Amino acid sequence: MRATMIHGPRDIRLEEVADPAVEYPTDAVVPVVSACVCGSDLWPYRGVAPTKRPHPIGHEFVGVVEEVGGDVRTVKPGDFVIAPFVISDNTCRNCRHGVHTSCENGGNWGTKTGPGSSVDGGQGERVRVPLADGTLVATPDQPDPTLVPGLLTLSDVMCTGHHAAVSARVGAGSTVAVVGDGAVGLCAVLAARRLGASRIIAMSRHADRQKVAGDFGATDIVSERGDDGIAAVKELLGGIGADAVLECVGTKESMDQALRSARPGGFVGYVGVPAGGPELPVGYMFGNNVNVAGGVAPARAYLPELLPDVLGGALDPGPVFDLELPLDRVADAYTAMDQRQAIKVLLRP
Amino acid sequence: MRATMIHGPRDIRLEEVADPAVEYPTDAVVPVVSACVCGSDLWPYRGVAPTKRPHPIGHEFVGVVEEVGGDVRTVKPGDFVIAPFVISDNTCRNCRHGVHTSCENGGNWGTKTGPGSSVDGGQGERVRVPLADGTLVATPDQPDPTLVPGLLTLSDVMCTGHHAAVSARVGAGSTVAVVGDGAVGLCAVLAARRLGASRIIAMSRHADRQKVAGDFGATDIVSERGDDGIAAVKELLGGIGADAVLECVGTKESMDQALRSARPGGFVGYVGVPAGGPELPVGYMFGNNVNVAGGVAPARAYLPELLPDVLGGALDPGPVFDLELPLDRVADAYTAMDQRQAIKVLLRP
Repeated sequence: MRATMIHGPRDIRLEEVADPAVEYPTDAVVPVVSACVCGSDLWPYRGVAPTKRPHPIGHEFVGVVEEVGGDVRTVKPGDFVIAPFVISDNTCRNCRHGVHTSCENGGNWGTKTGPGSSVDGGQGERVRVPLADGTLVATPDQPDPTLVPGLLTLSDVMCTGHHAAVSARVGAGSTVAVVGDGAVGLCAVLAARRLGASRIIAMSRHADRQKVAGDFGATDIVSERGDDGIAAVKELLGGIGADAVLECVGTKESMDQALRSARPGGFVGYVGVPAGGPELPVGYMFGNNVNVAGGVAPARAYLPELLPDVLGGALDPGPVFDLELPLDRVADAYTAMDQRQAIKVLLRP
Repeated sequence: MRATMIHGPRDIRLEEVADPAVEYPTDAVVPVVSACVCGSDLWPYRGVAPTKRPHPIGHEFVGVVEEVGGDVRTVKPGDFVIAPFVISDNTCRNCRHGVHTSCENGGNWGTKTGPGSSVDGGQGERVRVPLADGTLVATPDQPDPTLVPGLLTLSDVMCTGHHAAVSARVGAGSTVAVVGDGAVGLCAVLAARRLGASRIIAMSRHADRQKVAGDFGATDIVSERGDDGIAAVKELLGGIGADAVLECVGTKESMDQALRSARPGGFVGYVGVPAGGPELPVGYMFGNNVNVAGGVAPARAYLPELLPDVLGGALDPGPVFDLELPLDRVADAYTAMDQRQAIKVLLRP
């Protein structure tokens, strides 16, 4: 089969690799219906995170189960499934606490995880899925093809935006500012609206993304950054900061903007992968009781809550995909996202 | 009157100063019944925080109102009152959010705050209290003298321990680890028990403090620190960390221990004044979804909830005071706390 490999900075190749097969009784093999490129894939693509050796890449995909091992009980051949971006057993203590990203037996796509051959990445034609019962979530029926982009967001971005909002305790009547207008930031806007926020300020400098933010429920757009952006947020909220700030970027600058946009006692819900390890200014946080919650989003934990809304049409994150390419143009997909020509690219094998 | 002044590191003097008087219609003058020394007073005492010029010190006291300005409505001469450690109006937006420590019109004891002469510190014979309606909380009746130590803790330490527990979302059945066995840490144990924690691990190396921790509700004592302490906490909790860790010290080492003692998805509630500004390791927090909440405790916000419990006897933090001295021995009180000869010293003018 063909699968996407990263060899180093800006070196993405679609290569012929061995077909995956069931290796353990808990495995499933899933041909991919659609996959996508994540903002976090750009860290190794840009060389911010090192690539020590070539490996499969991609961690967001949906597909239809082809084969399962003898111990698999919750999915069967023919099921349409969503694969969250972390492998988990859904039974360990951390999973039971809803933190599937810290699964005691889990692992990551595209790596040498656990016994057996390496786990496939999602940007390929097929994937061997370890711990299929824990990892995969099947839809009740075959979904309408128009729902596929929205379902694909549940593998990562929509759940990640939701994690930012939940971590920041967004609820009915909350005032919210969203830092970052990438696919996660836009999904955070959608999540905040779904949770009942009364005011959602999207911080964005790009007209196309401002448009999506508005469609997703942003009540205000702030295009300034840094001190000017913080001042604009506070002015919109009558002089104090937001109850909840959703940090969806991961740089030192974005986290600083998020912390200083929150009101005293407010929460920053952060889901942007920290790039380069900015440390948090505890003195500022302490003096203002600005709290920081979040981290790598346990998408698997949120699927039972969000999936019915996507299937029923109440939640439609699909528009975060503004470009669709065939898998053999995967390198172009990375280029488009790196150069901000696309918000998020959907790939079809 | 006599009041305590700090002149520099280890230079605490009881001096004759001008008697306070009502200067603004929102002021009250309160003769002090008892006051105390705070762990945070030790930062300037030890020279960790600079003392640029001599100033009054102390920010925890209870007293009986002597005189009020013409606009004061909620307290009257003769009332026994608790003074939280920050001055607040209890009406601004931040106060309405329960963050009185960020009051838009508030200030600190012992400083030049707002109009008028400097505000007195609490370690003196009398105090001019600005914004008396917002700041002071009166008891319904004159309390029994045996309750005075417990009531005095409501000016700071008990509310601060409670803030750690509330910030870390301690509730029924929570597993809790408390880092720090000073008066705040011990009050955090008490707060965790009051909120229904099922397991409370006190980290302490001092027999006298271990005893108080046990009396306050600690179910386990861990005397190790660092990696050994973290391993001991996890072993007691079956291999994963605590749901809630209450950080009551404020050093880089204590915060590190707190963060790594929390389970994935857990909360660190921190109330120790950051000494020397340790920054927080966002990479570790992100990867493990360990959340950080807390800061300078809004004692005023918690008084309506905690005061009835102290008056009714259900909550007795009084035993954190293990030494009582007359005000003219205030310098000895600092020495005793600095050298850990006392957990917390109560002063009587």
